[in-house]
Amino acid sequence: MTNIVINGVGTIGKRVAEAVKKQEDMTLYALSDVAPNPELRTVKENFLNDTRLLASTESAVDDLQEGGLEVDGVLEEHIDEIDLIVDATPSGIDEKNKENIYEPNDVKAIFQGGSDKSIADVSFNADANYEDALGEDYVRVVSCNTTSLCRTLYELDDSFGVNEANVNLVRRGGDPKEDSRGPINSIIPVTDVPSHHGPDVQEVMPEIDITTLAVKVPTTLAHVHMVTTEIEDDATEEDVKRVFEKSTRISLESAEEGFSSTAKITEKMRDMHRERNDMNEVAVWEETITVEGKKVYWIHMTHQESIVVPETIDAIRAMLEMEEDKLASIGKTNEALGI
Amino acid sequence: MTNIVINGVGTIGKRVAEAVKKQEDMTLYALSDVAPNPELRTVKENFLNDTRLLASTESAVDDLQEGGLEVDGVLEEHIDEIDLIVDATPSGIDEKNKENIYEPNDVKAIFQGGSDKSIADVSFNADANYEDALGEDYVRVVSCNTTSLCRTLYELDDSFGVNEANVNLVRRGGDPKEDSRGPINSIIPVTDVPSHHGPDVQEVMPEIDITTLAVKVPTTLAHVHMVTTEIEDDATEEDVKRVFEKSTRISLESAEEGFSSTAKITEKMRDMHRERNDMNEVAVWEETITVEGKKVYWIHMTHQESIVVPETIDAIRAMLEMEEDKLASIGKTNEALGI
Amino acid sequence: MTNIVINGVGTIGKRVAEAVKKQEDMTLYALSDVAPNPELRTVKENFLNDTRLLASTESAVDDLQEGGLEVDGVLEEHIDEIDLIVDATPSGIDEKNKENIYEPNDVKAIFQGGSDKSIADVSFNADANYEDALGEDYVRVVSCNTTSLCRTLYELDDSFGVNEANVNLVRRGGDPKEDSRGPINSIIPVTDVPSHHGPDVQEVMPEIDITTLAVKVPTTLAHVHMVTTEIEDDATEEDVKRVFEKSTRISLESAEEGFSSTAKITEKMRDMHRERNDMNEVAVWEETITVEGKKVYWIHMTHQESIVVPETIDAIRAMLEMEEDKLASIGKTNEALGI
Amino acid sequence: MTNIVINGVGTIGKRVAEAVKKQEDMTLYALSDVAPNPELRTVKENFLNDTRLLASTESAVDDLQEGGLEVDGVLEEHIDEIDLIVDATPSGIDEKNKENIYEPNDVKAIFQGGSDKSIADVSFNADANYEDALGEDYVRVVSCNTTSLCRTLYELDDSFGVNEANVNLVRRGGDPKEDSRGPINSIIPVTDVPSHHGPDVQEVMPEIDITTLAVKVPTTLAHVHMVTTEIEDDATEEDVKRVFEKSTRISLESAEEGFSSTAKITEKMRDMHRERNDMNEVAVWEETITVEGKKVYWIHMTHQESIVVPETIDAIRAMLEMEEDKLASIGKTNEALGI
Repeated sequence: MTNIVINGVGTIGKRVAEAVKKQEDMTLYALSDVAPNPELRTVKENFLNDTRLLASTESAVDDLQEGGLEVDGVLEEHIDEIDLIVDATPSGIDEKNKENIYEPNDVKAIFQGGSDKSIADVSFNADANYEDALGEDYVRVVSCNTTSLCRTLYELDDSFGVNEANVNLVRRGGDPKEDSRGPINSIIPVTDVPSHHGPDVQEVMPEIDITTLAVKVPTTLAHVHMVTTEIEDDATEEDVKRVFEKSTRISLESAEEGFSSTAKITEKMRDMHRERNDMNEVAVWEETITVEGKKVYWIHMTHQESIVVPETIDAIRAMLEMEEDKLASIGKTNEALGI
Repeated sequence: MTNIVINGVGTIGKRVAEAVKKQEDMTLYALSDVAPNPELRTVKENFLNDTRLLASTESAVDDLQEGGLEVDGVLEEHIDEIDLIVDATPSGIDEKNKENIYEPNDVKAIFQGGSDKSIADVSFNADANYEDALGEDYVRVVSCNTTSLCRTLYELDDSFGVNEANVNLVRRGGDPKEDSRGPINSIIPVTDVPSHHGPDVQEVMPEIDITTLAVKVPTTLAHVHMVTTEIEDDATEEDVKRVFEKSTRISLESAEEGFSSTAKITEKMRDMHRERNDMNEVAVWEETITVEGKKVYWIHMTHQESIVVPETIDAIRAMLEMEEDKLASIGKTNEALGI
Repeated sequence: MTNIVINGVGTIGKRVAEAVKKQEDMTLYALSDVAPNPELRTVKENFLNDTRLLASTESAVDDLQEGGLEVDGVLEEHIDEIDLIVDATPSGIDEKNKENIYEPNDVKAIFQGGSDKSIADVSFNADANYEDALGEDYVRVVSCNTTSLCRTLYELDDSFGVNEANVNLVRRGGDPKEDSRGPINSIIPVTDVPSHHGPDVQEVMPEIDITTLAVKVPTTLAHVHMVTTEIEDDATEEDVKRVFEKSTRISLESAEEGFSSTAKITEKMRDMHRERNDMNEVAVWEETITVEGKKVYWIHMTHQESIVVPETIDAIRAMLEMEEDKLASIGKTNEALGI
Repeated sequence: MTNIVINGVGTIGKRVAEAVKKQEDMTLYALSDVAPNPELRTVKENFLNDTRLLASTESAVDDLQEGGLEVDGVLEEHIDEIDLIVDATPSGIDEKNKENIYEPNDVKAIFQGGSDKSIADVSFNADANYEDALGEDYVRVVSCNTTSLCRTLYELDDSFGVNEANVNLVRRGGDPKEDSRGPINSIIPVTDVPSHHGPDVQEVMPEIDITTLAVKVPTTLAHVHMVTTEIEDDATEEDVKRVFEKSTRISLESAEEGFSSTAKITEKMRDMHRERNDMNEVAVWEETITVEGKKVYWIHMTHQESIVVPETIDAIRAMLEMEEDKLASIGKTNEALGI
């Protein structure tokens, strides 16, 4: 059985840990962290009390124990048992972990979208380039924003060819739990124009000609992207909807039926009893899909906390060559996660 | 088996419907409503697809069907099968329902805290006055704010006697889904001083001398109350904590451990996989419990969407005399709801 | 002397009234309204206590007087003295006013961007089409969003030719005073894609090929636009900056110097003692101006409450043929307003 | 002529600088700071371009000059010309300034409410203890929250005697310009109960028995206080209103007339063309003033950015013994500031 460790139990780490546990073909070997935090505590106590907790560093053992958590040793001591580590530590720590732990011990690792591109040879999206990750030692699962763009642009490109894309991102100021982050009442432009999001998409899909601009706004629920593309072939609005609908990780939501904002879609996730009201799919507002000649427009919502979780599971399968075929992996992941 | 109908499937109605379904000693006979809405749709489709949907009025049959929902007749046609109706319709509609449907048909009904006090003889809180609802035909389960105050003040009064209470409420501007409500960046005082919340507590606990003031602020997650009381007997902070801890519907949360705001406690509910990240308990910040002489202070959080759900279940049991003893009912409710 | 009346003293009306009063070549003959409101009260008391207050309708006389305001008669009784009425009443009322008061009495009128396009033959922006308004009876000064787009696109088009423009608007949820408006914590897409803003620009500049998408966010200070254009001629970033700088109603703001958000620019307006911290200019963030081949990008801020004020003054001059030359009018307006 | 220097040109410093300049009996000798910031730049350029700019430290000369600002030397070089320094530097810096600059050079200094109480023997409020500051070398003007409480409680105490006060503060998350501060969507309790605000009032009015609780909310405009007091003598609501009205620094605002929230009162300040839409007065909502037996309740708004400005001017007069009588000083300050 393949043993997976989650190093860093925060927003992403806790979700990936629980997602790994739901898969039939992998084992959540351990969590690993350096200090007690409320999320680690709650998750450990409620769902993962039978899962090992490791200290990511020697010195972290005491900190975790003083916080009342039981520690099952230091990460490196267990390294021979571990097939792959999902590193969900803050940017900066990830590089040190690679250098000090993963490389010397020859253990595979997945990094997050916040990591520097140079940390891994492959930037990953399940739909767009699953094959590139097959057998790789280090893979970076791209950020939430990039993931939602890859999913939608990949489908459009695959069916009609995408000549050009212009995407304007309206980013949330902070996650729901991050109550020291602002702004309270302001719009903050990202002054790097074009923004880094376009090049990040190109790490996964180098052939897409994409430019992005971005602002930050006072909300916690989700990012929203306004997308303008030019396609090669002809397509109707129905064609585009059909293409999006056939992707299991794109969800068409109807504003007219009442799902008319990030809040209303989040309420739907609550009413569906999605854990943490997460939304692993990118949600495209159906009514916004518009075709004018070769131009295709739409607006979608990206749930920043959870959208990369299924991609991370797929990346594990690709890197450990547990599944050669992307659709097979996507299918398994989706079923286990209830997508 | 006792048959319960939920009339009005919105914020409260959908939660009570699911809660009734989880009880072993009652049956969710039907939902009833007048128009399709996104919540009704989602809940029906995902969890209650085997539950009847009734039209609350003759004319609503068409509206519901045009919205694509299957209708199993009009509420009044089923009235002989129904033991109790939980009315969660907007204020104003509730009174018409009582007059036109419940009274003529001699069916028991529960109303919500938003209803006028005169709608029922008993205003209800499970801890404080369960017995008053035994066998009653009409009961009003008090509002979220009043419920949290009744729970905490009841325990304090029961153990040490409460001479006087002064509570200042910081109310959320709207629920998460209510994205047309403000304020975006303002604090709005309730200019009725003292506010109506104090007298509403006295409907349940007439002996408590309580005054309240209130403001509305730009947040969606929860109300927060700052409480100042004067008690009769002596008590230490540890005594007060112990009294709160023994109540199953009061939860002590530690700011020091990271649960330091309404957002952080909501994140805990998410991490605990509470459905919709609801919190049925009133959450008292442990560190805020302070005793100075006869004065006892604390600050607590009231989850406006879900805190009255367990009280509603208990009210059903009391009104139908399914359980004479409040603790027995509370125990059953809590167990079924995972409190 | 030309006599101007402001009909409807709200967000726009009060600002235009004070702006008219500052012009040397026109007279603020009267304010006109139907009911007392806090803004009318404050403005009348503090700055316009020597200005007539008229009742827009017969029946409004009593309402205003009961509110403690002195009324100098009904609007129509004074109509022979009036050269032009600036109608800043809510959409719907404006049309009735035109039909019942302005047309029968043959008095010129200016309408606002919220009015239906059909209300006037000319949609107006001072830079782009001043000449079209010369001698006209009815003119619509376009909305805040359209005004800022006309100003910037006109300058770019005039210097380099604009082939195409794609603009994504991030709209404020409500004005600072509108504390019943939301959203509190949500992003709401405008599901009409492309949005109405593009066609509205084309009312002023029919030759511009522009498409727009829009969302609404929880802030009160300003709208922000992310602009992508394709120009005909070659231009460097310095060229674009120079072109924007030469326009008196475009202000380049430097994020690096600390004016990095709508809040920071608003603070600058406060520190400059701009009345109401208004900003009549469209504020382009200097660092966002980017040229890549024929593509020109930037992000700008539009102060929704005040940006149309100078255009309204210029429209008065054009309609009354007080000034044939747009730059002469703009110059007078700017000087009087301190732009 | 008395020469005043403002050390630290931020939220408070810039306002006090302009206020000093408006007084007839004092001279704004210089601003002093350590680095260029957008506020310093804007204020210097627009209103204080003829005022010296000093470097607070030797090493700051270069930083300021590199930022394009002209420097007229180091603060200590001018110390013999200076009668009093208003220190509006961040907490921590103030203490070093006192030790390294003010004490060795024997120059009087005023500190802000954020400073530690120990920094000065006298904590100051113009109404409550003007006399205590007469001739003093170091005075701390208390914080915005404390200032508004001192003003209202002093008047109440002076007329009717205040036995006890319980105040619950709803604090703004950050100032309008502070767009990196949160929370975006959360209420954060101050877990020190009672909060430090009560003891801070007692620094000024030791005889008042006051306890305070506090929370922080997502708004930028103002703090709001809910006040419950018990008085000694009898008073009617009209009596209390009369007492508040006679104080020039308390403003009664009517919610019924439309000034029903912090946003609506801020709009009034905008409509009155108050610079920066500041409000130097504490604004008591008239309708909230309620008397029940010996209990007096009300809710007021505290403009955190500007309320301490007039007190700082009065403190200067007291410390330099320019005016023995508080009412004389208050009168001069008010007149110069247009209160």
